[in-house]
Amino acid sequence: MFQVRTDLALEAREKFEEDNVEIKGVRLDEEQVTPEIHISSVMIETENGAKVMGRPKGSYVTLEASNMMEEDEGYHREISVQLSRILKRLLPDKQDFTTLVAGLGNRAVTPDSLGPRVVDNLCITRHIINEFGKYVIGDNCQKSVSSIVPGVMAQTGIESMEIVRGIVKETKPDVIIAVDALAARSTRRLNRTIQVTDTGINPGSGVGNHRHGLNGESMGIPVIAIGVPTVVDAATIVIDTMNNLLEAMCHAKQLRQLGHSYDELDLVEKYDLVHELLTPQLNTLFVTPKDVDEAVKRLSFTISEGINMALQKDEKKEEE
Amino acid sequence: MFQVRTDLALEAREKFEEDNVEIKGVRLDEEQVTPEIHISSVMIETENGAKVMGRPKGSYVTLEASNMMEEDEGYHREISVQLSRILKRLLPDKQDFTTLVAGLGNRAVTPDSLGPRVVDNLCITRHIINEFGKYVIGDNCQKSVSSIVPGVMAQTGIESMEIVRGIVKETKPDVIIAVDALAARSTRRLNRTIQVTDTGINPGSGVGNHRHGLNGESMGIPVIAIGVPTVVDAATIVIDTMNNLLEAMCHAKQLRQLGHSYDELDLVEKYDLVHELLTPQLNTLFVTPKDVDEAVKRLSFTISEGINMALQKDEKKEEE
Amino acid sequence: MFQVRTDLALEAREKFEEDNVEIKGVRLDEEQVTPEIHISSVMIETENGAKVMGRPKGSYVTLEASNMMEEDEGYHREISVQLSRILKRLLPDKQDFTTLVAGLGNRAVTPDSLGPRVVDNLCITRHIINEFGKYVIGDNCQKSVSSIVPGVMAQTGIESMEIVRGIVKETKPDVIIAVDALAARSTRRLNRTIQVTDTGINPGSGVGNHRHGLNGESMGIPVIAIGVPTVVDAATIVIDTMNNLLEAMCHAKQLRQLGHSYDELDLVEKYDLVHELLTPQLNTLFVTPKDVDEAVKRLSFTISEGINMALQKDEKKEEE
Amino acid sequence: MFQVRTDLALEAREKFEEDNVEIKGVRLDEEQVTPEIHISSVMIETENGAKVMGRPKGSYVTLEASNMMEEDEGYHREISVQLSRILKRLLPDKQDFTTLVAGLGNRAVTPDSLGPRVVDNLCITRHIINEFGKYVIGDNCQKSVSSIVPGVMAQTGIESMEIVRGIVKETKPDVIIAVDALAARSTRRLNRTIQVTDTGINPGSGVGNHRHGLNGESMGIPVIAIGVPTVVDAATIVIDTMNNLLEAMCHAKQLRQLGHSYDELDLVEKYDLVHELLTPQLNTLFVTPKDVDEAVKRLSFTISEGINMALQKDEKKEEE
Repeated sequence: MFQVRTDLALEAREKFEEDNVEIKGVRLDEEQVTPEIHISSVMIETENGAKVMGRPKGSYVTLEASNMMEEDEGYHREISVQLSRILKRLLPDKQDFTTLVAGLGNRAVTPDSLGPRVVDNLCITRHIINEFGKYVIGDNCQKSVSSIVPGVMAQTGIESMEIVRGIVKETKPDVIIAVDALAARSTRRLNRTIQVTDTGINPGSGVGNHRHGLNGESMGIPVIAIGVPTVVDAATIVIDTMNNLLEAMCHAKQLRQLGHSYDELDLVEKYDLVHELLTPQLNTLFVTPKDVDEAVKRLSFTISEGINMALQKDEKKEEE
Repeated sequence: MFQVRTDLALEAREKFEEDNVEIKGVRLDEEQVTPEIHISSVMIETENGAKVMGRPKGSYVTLEASNMMEEDEGYHREISVQLSRILKRLLPDKQDFTTLVAGLGNRAVTPDSLGPRVVDNLCITRHIINEFGKYVIGDNCQKSVSSIVPGVMAQTGIESMEIVRGIVKETKPDVIIAVDALAARSTRRLNRTIQVTDTGINPGSGVGNHRHGLNGESMGIPVIAIGVPTVVDAATIVIDTMNNLLEAMCHAKQLRQLGHSYDELDLVEKYDLVHELLTPQLNTLFVTPKDVDEAVKRLSFTISEGINMALQKDEKKEEE
Repeated sequence: MFQVRTDLALEAREKFEEDNVEIKGVRLDEEQVTPEIHISSVMIETENGAKVMGRPKGSYVTLEASNMMEEDEGYHREISVQLSRILKRLLPDKQDFTTLVAGLGNRAVTPDSLGPRVVDNLCITRHIINEFGKYVIGDNCQKSVSSIVPGVMAQTGIESMEIVRGIVKETKPDVIIAVDALAARSTRRLNRTIQVTDTGINPGSGVGNHRHGLNGESMGIPVIAIGVPTVVDAATIVIDTMNNLLEAMCHAKQLRQLGHSYDELDLVEKYDLVHELLTPQLNTLFVTPKDVDEAVKRLSFTISEGINMALQKDEKKEEE
Repeated sequence: MFQVRTDLALEAREKFEEDNVEIKGVRLDEEQVTPEIHISSVMIETENGAKVMGRPKGSYVTLEASNMMEEDEGYHREISVQLSRILKRLLPDKQDFTTLVAGLGNRAVTPDSLGPRVVDNLCITRHIINEFGKYVIGDNCQKSVSSIVPGVMAQTGIESMEIVRGIVKETKPDVIIAVDALAARSTRRLNRTIQVTDTGINPGSGVGNHRHGLNGESMGIPVIAIGVPTVVDAATIVIDTMNNLLEAMCHAKQLRQLGHSYDELDLVEKYDLVHELLTPQLNTLFVTPKDVDEAVKRLSFTISEGINMALQKDEKKEEE
């Protein structure tokens, strides 16, 4: 029924940390790149790790920037630079691959419009290279880049995955970059976190809850997914607060008696108690910040620039 | 600090009903217009009633339609007809008044875009009548109607109220119709309810929480407000579920002991307990349905048509 | 180089009429459906006819309504009804075909946004029928309908045709309806004419000048195209006025002498003279009415409703 | 009737240059700021100059950049810097003035959406300064800046000028910056030129042809107008080409006879001839480039940044 859902591997990992559980087959790396930017990598390396973490084997790199939401002169270039570094590690290791960027989500629902908006600011080159060759373009954008905004099923009647797969078959890119808005567990992470993974988009993820995966298996080519949590499930926020309440009962002086009784319930009983009180409607609701329009506008620009940088030939050289 | 907020007078009234409290100075009328459409009128008639209800004296008419969200051939014309009937009762009782419609809210945040979208479909006549006189226009739109979408403070740096007041001083309409998205207490009412009131827009209401009133007092002319609840405050949804939890503790068999202890807390202690567990972040979050784009699109059209009908000369005659 | 371009078969036909030329293999039918609505059908029946007319064999049905631009209560339902009649004649003659509607053009350029906007108001059913079967849906929309807005090449790097073909291969619809904004020869026809053809979209047509066809041949299934002229090529408007000027010279009293000299030029010389004076920039410009936003908004709704009606099961019965 | 209209003072000046006419009371300065950026200032200093030029006394500074349309990494920062320099010379010469930016035009018509889009990217501070004082904000945006997008008369029924004047009366800014899309005479200047003037917006200018001025006289405070030509009147483009035709007739070898006759017509007769052939419809049409969406998107960002820089305290210091 209700689950405390998160699309961030980092948050899934943290749950176990709280419980002091070691997970075999899951490795965590941390890097404080600048005083403001922190990068964590969760590597799920075995089938066991995948099972425990509830998501496929692969790398999940999370970029957290405390100031991501603060206004900058336009956008946070330093975050774009870090994002491009992360992307380059996951992109094909050859000179001239071709990329299809898929902007998933619903342009008409503000917190779900991240993907379409990222695509709006990309440097698209496939049609120019196809017509004139790649030496016509200046130094900036020499790799072939195409894009698609597939829309959502309520608008098209078609799964995003089907649309992208059809286009992949026609245009044969080497790699897909899929951009999507995600659901976090914690409101603290909203619009402050970028997750990059080589496992693609998987069923049950995203603001609109994708029903089919857009991943290496379904596409036949590598799929890198970039996501930003812009909502929390309404059920999650309620369950979390109720858990706080029940925890508190065990400690609050005036409630010692009360907490004691609650304490005697076993875990299953506790969950039953909480779920009993949630209405089914919660499943169709999400929680989002009031300034989500500004956040998505700024973040989508930061991510576009990160992708643009990652697909520029010379920057790669420059870095070496 | 946190309050269980509702912009619907009907929900404010229901709270007292639950508690079996009679409120002096507040009258309630109910009308089942069609099997699907129910109209309730809360009349706050005295200062005491206003104080208890926490909102100004005046009429609050609520139109509820169980099927408002179901797809129709385009939009629900029968709801527009009822809305126009309600509006006509509140509009000036003379032949040729002029109207300014203000579409409040933020076009860039889907659940707050109701007001701007309603204005998009209005029949605007002021400039035509000013230039050619009213006999040039066909039968449909003979009253002078103008409109403004003031935007929100983060975009303009100016209160909506200041913008509308400036335009009122320049253009001197006889009446304002202000359209705005509201916050409800119950998720059940989202996108299924239209509230019409002759008290205007008051501080603290609306998805974006207006800080200044747009009402008869601040404008110097009557202000009719049309609102639809499209969000629930995140704090409200959490508080409500926690109250359910605590209530349930008094009844659940396995929790009799626990409930008993909770029961012994007095009302103030209960509230303290609940509020202690809420994070301040909840104040900056709202809860909204996933299909809010479709809902706002359809509702804004229904309301535009209701306003268009209400401001047509002949319909008024027809009705008599 | 420059051509007097028109996407309307009717205008191509008229050119020959002016010259009193009979065209073998091209048949014309006319029908005055209502005092306001006139329907003309140009049937290109032979390869010779196709060559002379400069477009593929097939039916080109043109609906002209003098009042199409006048405001109605919302939209012109009577035009939608006629459009649905025309569509039904071209759609597959079986009970349960599936349809993909492609909204071609650029949503960000007002006169080119017709296709994307038509798709916004369609009744999409494919995903519901796929999940629940067709008996779940009410009487209104029982045929499987899906849609795609492919965007334009500057945004995606991919031809619209490639995107649609990929989706056709994945989802296997029985028929495509492609909606697109067109270029007319005469400004008089802008936003007042709907062309429906069973020949699809062909290279060189559309506001953005498609470079590849979206037709039966490229798609492997029938393609019905619905188009409305919303622009005139800048070159066309200049050439037309210049021809008027040169014609006038032959008649204007004060210019008899002048006209006489012009008359002595042969046709090739006349064309050379005109083209010499056109700058190459004209090729990148189009001419459009100042109220194109209102026109496209209203027309897109009229066309959506026409398509919705055509794909409803019961309406078909009703008509018989 | 028809006029060869231009909103650019520079183009009005050039007309006289062609004719080798000296205009008393009109001074021209030229500055090649960088190899790509050229700045011309037309100063209309006397009533006579104003009469001859057909526009009010004042400064008209034109920034032309040959590469303004070429893609840059995001936007042309060097153009923004020059624009801010021009603005600072015209803005009040005191520490702490307050500014209202008005984004004129129609957001729904691509070439007329420049003004609204510029406002979307401004740094708005008035509400923050009003609430917290100016020392709360960082170094970037310390002057009070507010904005309004008044919409167009077909949408609001109200003149832009009335809306802005009402807001000026309520909020009492020290200066207005009005941003608007313009009509040029030459297609060569489209989207490549920025005009800044201290004379405001005057009747007959703009894509939508303002009927009332938004200037110092009507507002009671200084009005600086920033404009970019995004359209050419359809009549202009036709008249220009026809004039070319008639000129050519005097020179073309094969037309010597013809040209000779035309030459014998006096100026009035020539104009009559041309105007006779123009249809009244031309007045409701405009000509715009096919890539106007990309152009307006990029230019609006360049201008926003120029305004943001001009209203930053420290940049002013920095420059000295």
